[in-house]
Amino acid sequence: MKRIVASELKEHVGEEVLMKGWLHNFRKLGNIAFLVIRDRGGLTQVVITDKTEMDKLDNLYTGTIVEVTGKLVEAPKSKFGFEIQDGKLKVLVPVTYPSPIDISKDDVHAELDTMLDYRSVVLRHPKMQAVFKVQAGILQAFAESMRRQGFTEFRNPILLGSASESGASVFEVKYFEGKAYLAQSPQFYKQIMTGIFERVFTIGTVFRAEKHNTIRHLMEITQLDGEMGFIEDYDEVLVVIEQVTRDIFGYLEKNFKKELDLWKVTLPKLPEGRFPKLKIKEAHKIIEERTGKSAKREELDMDPEDEKEIAKYIFEKFGTDFLWLLNFKKDKNFYTWNNPDDPDESLSYDLECRGLEWLSGTHRIHIYEKLVENMKKQGLSGDDAKHYLQAFQYGMPSEAGFSFGLERMTKQIFGFNNIREATLFPSDLNRVAGARRKGKENENYE
Amino acid sequence: MKRIVASELKEHVGEEVLMKGWLHNFRKLGNIAFLVIRDRGGLTQVVITDKTEMDKLDNLYTGTIVEVTGKLVEAPKSKFGFEIQDGKLKVLVPVTYPSPIDISKDDVHAELDTMLDYRSVVLRHPKMQAVFKVQAGILQAFAESMRRQGFTEFRNPILLGSASESGASVFEVKYFEGKAYLAQSPQFYKQIMTGIFERVFTIGTVFRAEKHNTIRHLMEITQLDGEMGFIEDYDEVLVVIEQVTRDIFGYLEKNFKKELDLWKVTLPKLPEGRFPKLKIKEAHKIIEERTGKSAKREELDMDPEDEKEIAKYIFEKFGTDFLWLLNFKKDKNFYTWNNPDDPDESLSYDLECRGLEWLSGTHRIHIYEKLVENMKKQGLSGDDAKHYLQAFQYGMPSEAGFSFGLERMTKQIFGFNNIREATLFPSDLNRVAGARRKGKENENYE
Repeated sequence: MKRIVASELKEHVGEEVLMKGWLHNFRKLGNIAFLVIRDRGGLTQVVITDKTEMDKLDNLYTGTIVEVTGKLVEAPKSKFGFEIQDGKLKVLVPVTYPSPIDISKDDVHAELDTMLDYRSVVLRHPKMQAVFKVQAGILQAFAESMRRQGFTEFRNPILLGSASESGASVFEVKYFEGKAYLAQSPQFYKQIMTGIFERVFTIGTVFRAEKHNTIRHLMEITQLDGEMGFIEDYDEVLVVIEQVTRDIFGYLEKNFKKELDLWKVTLPKLPEGRFPKLKIKEAHKIIEERTGKSAKREELDMDPEDEKEIAKYIFEKFGTDFLWLLNFKKDKNFYTWNNPDDPDESLSYDLECRGLEWLSGTHRIHIYEKLVENMKKQGLSGDDAKHYLQAFQYGMPSEAGFSFGLERMTKQIFGFNNIREATLFPSDLNRVAGARRKGKENENYE
Repeated sequence: MKRIVASELKEHVGEEVLMKGWLHNFRKLGNIAFLVIRDRGGLTQVVITDKTEMDKLDNLYTGTIVEVTGKLVEAPKSKFGFEIQDGKLKVLVPVTYPSPIDISKDDVHAELDTMLDYRSVVLRHPKMQAVFKVQAGILQAFAESMRRQGFTEFRNPILLGSASESGASVFEVKYFEGKAYLAQSPQFYKQIMTGIFERVFTIGTVFRAEKHNTIRHLMEITQLDGEMGFIEDYDEVLVVIEQVTRDIFGYLEKNFKKELDLWKVTLPKLPEGRFPKLKIKEAHKIIEERTGKSAKREELDMDPEDEKEIAKYIFEKFGTDFLWLLNFKKDKNFYTWNNPDDPDESLSYDLECRGLEWLSGTHRIHIYEKLVENMKKQGLSGDDAKHYLQAFQYGMPSEAGFSFGLERMTKQIFGFNNIREATLFPSDLNRVAGARRKGKENENYE
């Protein structure tokens, strides 16, 4: 008999079926036992009435790998919808250790720290699976949308010869007799690649060695990056990003309803047409008008309360959760143009949703001499960025780019408080790849 | 007027068109000038007869970003097929430095070292672009095939708390007051994830700190990894890999004919049905029969000459370039089953094509106690692999997996001698991310 999985049950009602999976839950009520088994398609209930069959699970624990055969019937009253009756069991891999954490209920009730300590078990819970299935969906939808829009994928290097953009928070690697550094972003390389393919994207891992333990910060994250050449105006890139955003949420809505429902997630509301746009200067004025508070506004930036207030305004006025915040304070970094029409501003943009930043990007400086001048001002050596500068010295079109953070986006879709909940194996001050570092206690977040 | 790119020319014959791109080549013959411009769609010839227009390029070099308008006509005699006549020019970004390397001819004539020194320029050559477009195609086709076969994508961590599998060749990272290490493979994590989703894949960067400078070896590569649970026999995984292989080559054949033709690449010949299989023991016998040479065959392994001989045999007999080599010598690593039916063998497989290894994998040990025992034998501490062992302690099905190397696959498709030719920004003893390390001379390969 061929194995079927839980997602295929509908097509096999009334048949004798064979399933394999993990023993997810097990209750004995006198002469009847209720098993729940878990496979990649979901959960299935199995009813066993034969004592010999029941006894096979003596001294075994959840997680045991079993093969079950029996008759599949509809069970409209059970939350599973289907049931295997008169189940026969075969233990494929016995588990002889009681589970360190209960994943058999609708929710896992444990501190985040405990959840991270037992990551390989906790992730088996259907709600945890749901988070990372959706995350896989984001990866797919992003790449597909970028390709449809004419972008070519490339792999950005992680080991770099020098601490490029901002030396302070870079991880140092022993590289034979010398040193190398872990990439903080694919910035230089996606710009170089724009000189090759005009439109590029990369899904890559980046690193920040910031000695903080916050609910927002990790040492290692995944970035979804895009870069686009031959633009006259950065608005052309905003159009691309709006399409990517629509494509991602459209894909999630269509394919992950079950997973999102488990967490009672309502996806953000997209506008009918273009996303509303506000310059930071305009946003400041609106906030002042609405709240009366005249916070220090000489710096073109937003604080978390500003972001919430402006999100409320946008939703009231345009009925959408999305908003562009444009033209933050000038000199954002050495490779971003300031606004030639307003010396306070840089040509920069953040995509905001529900009061949080989801993406940021800028219009890049593509003129060799200007880049060299800016790098000098910041004390950056051109020697360390030879390939980068070379791309501009030998001709680069006007271009702009952007990056989403995969974990951040996942966190915000699910409304998590802590980014670790949206990360399979988080690295922070106390953990590397989810595993506790020697001598590290439970986490306290700043 | 809306910009068109070279790949759209066919649809605009007879029209006044606007193009933007890099000045790829420029020849003046008396009162007529021939420009070639390069954009993401390819190369286009522009004929200029107006002296004022020609003069705009005085003192400018290839790479200059230009806008061109003019009448598009068919030019069946020219190698471009189309031509813009009576072109008018606008210089968008002038290049005032002569190119350090000539990329305007059909081939780039330079040593590999020079090509790497001027990477950001060299990659603009159509043949170089072709290599990395095909590489992007491999990434896409792999992911799509895995998804169609029910595999879920995940992101494998790169920073690890301990030097897992083989400590000797691992890069060490300064991690605040302690240390971390760069992943040599996603092995542990893809096995853990098999305990979550049963079938997983990951496209990730991995690192090997091997102090060799060979034509085959890099410090940083991209691996395409898959892992599959609930198998009875590793042959079920071979079926998946054969499908992935078909899907990748099918996709390349369909979408990258132009790119492959530039390099005169003939894709490997796939068999009609299943790929032929040989155990190493059987392969040794065949080689001895064919060559008479009775090399030392007590070890179940293959040397490069063996691989070539057996590839010849397979092509003669089955008319395909592909072949499975099965069951290499035992104790391949601590997580691979030996063959219970033959104590000399491990349950392992390599996909061979044209005498080279393209992929390898094994049937994994899924029994907690057996893993602990093997790790102990190899002096590996279970403490360093807590999440990994946890996955098995609390129930793991029988499973097997595999990994392709992206750069290696690219190199072998194009028939390159040196893996650096198939890598955008290679890291080795003399370079990091393509950039020469301080004090490093030209490369000599072992």
